[in-house]
Amino acid sequence: MTNEIKEILIYGHASGPNPWKVIMVLEELELPYKHKLLEMSEIKQEPYIHLNPNGRVPTIEDPNTGITLWESGAIIEYLIDTYDKERKLSIDTFPEKYHLKQFLYFQSSGQGPYYGQLAWFKAFHPEKIESAIARYEDQAIRVVAVLDKILQGKEYLVGNRITYADIAFVSWEVTIRKMIPDLDERAERLYPNYLAWFRRVSARPSVKRTLKLKSEAMA
Amino acid sequence: MTNEIKEILIYGHASGPNPWKVIMVLEELELPYKHKLLEMSEIKQEPYIHLNPNGRVPTIEDPNTGITLWESGAIIEYLIDTYDKERKLSIDTFPEKYHLKQFLYFQSSGQGPYYGQLAWFKAFHPEKIESAIARYEDQAIRVVAVLDKILQGKEYLVGNRITYADIAFVSWEVTIRKMIPDLDERAERLYPNYLAWFRRVSARPSVKRTLKLKSEAMA
Repeated sequence: MTNEIKEILIYGHASGPNPWKVIMVLEELELPYKHKLLEMSEIKQEPYIHLNPNGRVPTIEDPNTGITLWESGAIIEYLIDTYDKERKLSIDTFPEKYHLKQFLYFQSSGQGPYYGQLAWFKAFHPEKIESAIARYEDQAIRVVAVLDKILQGKEYLVGNRITYADIAFVSWEVTIRKMIPDLDERAERLYPNYLAWFRRVSARPSVKRTLKLKSEAMA
Repeated sequence: MTNEIKEILIYGHASGPNPWKVIMVLEELELPYKHKLLEMSEIKQEPYIHLNPNGRVPTIEDPNTGITLWESGAIIEYLIDTYDKERKLSIDTFPEKYHLKQFLYFQSSGQGPYYGQLAWFKAFHPEKIESAIARYEDQAIRVVAVLDKILQGKEYLVGNRITYADIAFVSWEVTIRKMIPDLDERAERLYPNYLAWFRRVSARPSVKRTLKLKSEAMA
């Protein structure tokens, strides 16, 4: 099947976690793609904002269907619907199908934005504001604790098998470790289900390959 | 059809915008529902966190299918798939189907979190931090500007007709007006497409009814 599929074009950025989240799914599904790395300045101006008026990455252009699509969550839903016919990363039974979406929204609206604000106040905000950093560190740890609780007695989030819901969390989980350097140490004591899951999903060849590509892009 | 459907139970909170976002969709689809209003303290503890370990609202329990589901975006996707067979609020053609999801993710991960952080730093943070308030005011206005640009020459976000994508934005757009009291005045000069769209969608009977229910819940 892969041979007949034309390369999907994905616009990304070396350090932004959200394009790499989509790349992990493309790698898992063994889809052909071309990753076009943009500079931060390019993302905020024409011609890119003609594709994505929100001025963020990723955006995809899929010549197989003609679609242009942005928002990493929507892109993952599209890729799964269109290309995961063999259910390598998804479950089509009820209610699992919607629990997968639930976790994708939790990742997109609960994990990503909070981790992102911590990164902002730690690395980019013009002044150092301890109470803002503390707020977002607390929120990040809260998300970790929620995942730990959900994963009690489970290896994966939904249906006892790997799905896109698990994969979607990894990119930001890797990034947050730069902001909270002792996260693994803390998790070892307090959030063991979460830590085992993070290590289990991170050990997948597709994820390791993607993280290697990211290191190379950032070099 | 409505007569055969049992009441969908939705857990919400008087002032939180996300449950009301789902209520607007329930009202549009004329589905029977019961809105259980929780106190903020109840949302963070048992028995509620047994339903939703993330300790946020909304969560739904639908006796018609047996599902328990949280994350407002996932709930809207579920309600549309399950109950919008007549396509009152959705479009099933390609690529519109995925553009609807794109805007629902933009709302859930781009609008809601930024507006929510502005509300946090304006109303709840223990100290007044001007640079954090300025950051989130800038981000909120940026989202408004992106919507304005997308809506140039259009009445609705996707397919020239009302869909769940438009409805999903309204609840937070109403809330942000408390944080940025001169937003309408600014929008009148700078973001007229956005403002006309906000007024058009807000004028729908389902939205007006929901906002009236919200006022009553907050009273």
